[in-house]
Amino acid sequence: MQLLMVSLKPLAAFGVSSSDRSKWKRKTIVTFALTILTSSQAILIVWSKRAGKYEYSVTTANFMVETLKCALSLAALARIWKTEGVTEDNRLSTTLNEVIVYPIPAFLYLIKNLLQYYIFAYVNAPGYQILKNLNIISTGVLYRIILKRELSEIQWAAFVLLCAGCTTAQLNSNSDRVLETPVQGWIMAIVMALLSGFAGVYTEAIMKKRPSRNINVQNFWLYIFGMIFNAIAIVIQDFDAVVNKGFFHGYSLITTLMILNHALSGIAVSMVMKYADNIVKVYSTSVAMLLTAIVSVFLFRFHLSLAFFLGSIVVSVSVYLHSIGKPRR
Amino acid sequence: MQLLMVSLKPLAAFGVSSSDRSKWKRKTIVTFALTILTSSQAILIVWSKRAGKYEYSVTTANFMVETLKCALSLAALARIWKTEGVTEDNRLSTTLNEVIVYPIPAFLYLIKNLLQYYIFAYVNAPGYQILKNLNIISTGVLYRIILKRELSEIQWAAFVLLCAGCTTAQLNSNSDRVLETPVQGWIMAIVMALLSGFAGVYTEAIMKKRPSRNINVQNFWLYIFGMIFNAIAIVIQDFDAVVNKGFFHGYSLITTLMILNHALSGIAVSMVMKYADNIVKVYSTSVAMLLTAIVSVFLFRFHLSLAFFLGSIVVSVSVYLHSIGKPRR
Repeated sequence: MQLLMVSLKPLAAFGVSSSDRSKWKRKTIVTFALTILTSSQAILIVWSKRAGKYEYSVTTANFMVETLKCALSLAALARIWKTEGVTEDNRLSTTLNEVIVYPIPAFLYLIKNLLQYYIFAYVNAPGYQILKNLNIISTGVLYRIILKRELSEIQWAAFVLLCAGCTTAQLNSNSDRVLETPVQGWIMAIVMALLSGFAGVYTEAIMKKRPSRNINVQNFWLYIFGMIFNAIAIVIQDFDAVVNKGFFHGYSLITTLMILNHALSGIAVSMVMKYADNIVKVYSTSVAMLLTAIVSVFLFRFHLSLAFFLGSIVVSVSVYLHSIGKPRR
Repeated sequence: MQLLMVSLKPLAAFGVSSSDRSKWKRKTIVTFALTILTSSQAILIVWSKRAGKYEYSVTTANFMVETLKCALSLAALARIWKTEGVTEDNRLSTTLNEVIVYPIPAFLYLIKNLLQYYIFAYVNAPGYQILKNLNIISTGVLYRIILKRELSEIQWAAFVLLCAGCTTAQLNSNSDRVLETPVQGWIMAIVMALLSGFAGVYTEAIMKKRPSRNINVQNFWLYIFGMIFNAIAIVIQDFDAVVNKGFFHGYSLITTLMILNHALSGIAVSMVMKYADNIVKVYSTSVAMLLTAIVSVFLFRFHLSLAFFLGSIVVSVSVYLHSIGKPRR
């Protein structure tokens, strides 16, 4: 717990800076943290798969992640209250007007996760990994439409490249089967991409609606609804397993590490949403995907394919174009 | 021959226009012609492979291509002399000072073609197809260094994407073997890419050095040296076969069509070099590669892979970025 408190310190420190330079620094740090956490997350998943199949129920683990994030937000808040006192911006109490939109992202994720069980009737797991790259496009489109933020022509081109590059990097000898996906599979994949894009864009809208509001309070309320909706998911999907084998059945050291990692990544995502945006998040997780593969070469003796190199080149050019293609005002 | 004269008419017509609009029109037409000719060339190759193995000697066919191009240039010149009379710009006679650089491209191609026989000791044929995409990068670099022409940051990014996109589109289940290419293979592939890039850039320099000189005279001298160097190649590589089986052994209808097509493509390349540039040529042949695959779906029931779609997206974005990324002066 001491370690976690240390890693949360920047959160508090971030609240005070205001100049452009420190804003840029904060944005860079949270982006970097998200990238590292996301890639270590994928490595933990590979590690846990190597160690054997999942024997715990995923829904209880998700619930634990939300609970841990909630606890960490409260702990960070407690520190802030001690040093700064309780103010209008960092008080935990809220109004219906403020809190009414908070359940929306958690609700969208719940529907998406339930749909996930049905899409596998039409697409296999590696095919689903490929189709998940549609999230990149849906996030860009919804970011433009809902948040009304501008991307330049070059940034749009970069976004299309990011999607194509990530997909290319993930190609393997069975990828062509994705082309045989039936229409129902495509529709579900697109709906899931839209749900996930909506949830991301909605979270950003919530975090940025009240810029001066302390991020830990915003997180606390987001995660409370996360806990509630994940509790619903436990009842729908794993009620019997939890009753018969217990809530924590099958938990191991890796499970605990994964929960810890997911909680920290979740907080990093919130910070990226508050201090940067959905576009930064998409780039961050895409670069994390490439980092994961490279690290896996050393850890698990993975072989990198030519497709991976080509995809990485396209993703790198996309990052470059996004950075030079800022819209002029 | 009547058909060929008709197809050469635009050549003469192109000589008179001078406004920016007609220059742009001319550039578009020659680019379009090169794209169509290059893709039909690839389709003829597939067709001839389906019909059986090459039984003619490639060197004699190359010699015939140069001879045909020479004859077509002379025929076009004869028409021009008849209508416009012989002028300083369209006279066939030349000076040592003008003609001294003309053998260079043909000489570079000769060395490249001879090297081609040795590279197959290190790389298989599909692997060589992949490595040939290095031509794109070498052309861009030499275009910048030798012709001292500027490309914007975005156009450079587009060029890297073009190379990655073309390679991605050509990926198949055996492509990863390219990564096992020994150092000698890589060096030879890079040397060949540089030779081919040099030849292209040199041709452009020759064609543009005397802008008012009639293109058919320039072509005539280029192709004369092409004939000489290809005659040398016949002696080096196929002397026995030609002496024993005859010059035209194994020629068929398809061989004749391929020679005709190569000759017309060669003239289109010269026109692109005179009226556009090497960059346009690279884009044109890359787009032709994609067109060929799409046409092959209908002609030969080819199946397009997911990699092909992804590569096509990247190439399309590259074309778009190249067009919007013109350097500002």
